[in-house]
Amino acid sequence: MTGDEHHIMKSFDSELQHLHADLARLAGQAESQLADALKALAERDDELATRVVAADDQADRLDQHINDSILRVLALRAPVADDLRAVVTALRVSTELERIADLAANVAKRSLVLSHSGDVQPVRAVVRMGQVVLALLKRALDGYLAPDAEAAMAAWSQDQEVDDLYSSLFREILTYMMEDPRTITPCTQLMFAAKNLERIGDHATNIAEMTYYLVKGTPLREPRPKHDVSAYIGRDGS
Amino acid sequence: MTGDEHHIMKSFDSELQHLHADLARLAGQAESQLADALKALAERDDELATRVVAADDQADRLDQHINDSILRVLALRAPVADDLRAVVTALRVSTELERIADLAANVAKRSLVLSHSGDVQPVRAVVRMGQVVLALLKRALDGYLAPDAEAAMAAWSQDQEVDDLYSSLFREILTYMMEDPRTITPCTQLMFAAKNLERIGDHATNIAEMTYYLVKGTPLREPRPKHDVSAYIGRDGS
Repeated sequence: MTGDEHHIMKSFDSELQHLHADLARLAGQAESQLADALKALAERDDELATRVVAADDQADRLDQHINDSILRVLALRAPVADDLRAVVTALRVSTELERIADLAANVAKRSLVLSHSGDVQPVRAVVRMGQVVLALLKRALDGYLAPDAEAAMAAWSQDQEVDDLYSSLFREILTYMMEDPRTITPCTQLMFAAKNLERIGDHATNIAEMTYYLVKGTPLREPRPKHDVSAYIGRDGS
Repeated sequence: MTGDEHHIMKSFDSELQHLHADLARLAGQAESQLADALKALAERDDELATRVVAADDQADRLDQHINDSILRVLALRAPVADDLRAVVTALRVSTELERIADLAANVAKRSLVLSHSGDVQPVRAVVRMGQVVLALLKRALDGYLAPDAEAAMAAWSQDQEVDDLYSSLFREILTYMMEDPRTITPCTQLMFAAKNLERIGDHATNIAEMTYYLVKGTPLREPRPKHDVSAYIGRDGS
């Protein structure tokens, strides 16, 4: 290897390390945005909720920065094989993380609305579902950052639990509204909060699938467990 | 230019043309999935709704095929400058289109649930909002496929109209539920259908922003018109 070749390879490695560090930072932001949104919802902490809403811009900016870096790496380094796969996966994971942070900010917004429209009992069940989603997200992110296909698949399998929790929660909130129509306004906010949490679970599951592809080199062919159409007729809110 | 160089450039052009054709096909699928979902909702056509739900797999597969093609182009051609920007934008637009098709399938699922939980008057207003979203989507896709930054920006500006329509529709459905609690079940389905349409508008707006970047070479710096936090306290369902 010539000195120049060595220099080029070394700086490519350092670029990949920077990219990995940026992704780890964005992952940390998405995770703490979700944890804070759930805390705000559980304790009806408007100050914290407002902070989560305001912090969403940071995740957007970091995602944009990561996109720019990746474009630069692709243009200057033209990576191939494993390196190319790592860079393209980073691009897609970054988008997922930005969406997760955005959905967490939306949960915080709904917490603010709830503070003004009265308390309802199903809030606690939504927070509990959120904790399961947070655990799934942590596991998916650990799997991606390692990277570890088995850890990713463990997160992937957990998504069915989140979907089931969401379906039963949806029915619970619906029943609650029907029994006491004065709770309709806060309950619709809770339904959307629960839906946002379920979607965060989906995005975390996407990251798990991307991790599988990153490590194994082939996309995961196993179909994600999904309810069929008849389940929707069961009014499960999907 | 040597014969070999000429051959390499020619086949790269033909790869880009194939990619463009695949994206146009996916755009067409997303657009007709939305049009069919709205028709199914308007006419309570369960057969059509079931077809839209089933067709979502096609969009997933085409998106996966486009991703694979892009990875191959990046690895074999290592495009730079404008070509690199076109390829990376294609990767991101493909993801947006897949999500639009997915959300349209979700609207069709909710149309099926509505068929089983009774008719409610606000359905027509949701369909009308959907027509505005469909027009926005068409405009954004025409802008991307041209590509034409001005057309894209015209679509981009229309998103505020969709958001306003959604907010007023959300309040209308809420009022309807409170006045007649027997409509709670179908009305929650309608709320989610309206939310899905609003999100399709957001994804179409993302495509418009990507088109701006594709044509101009710099990201659109103008912030997207957004309601501030106080609007959420106004229970607008965002």
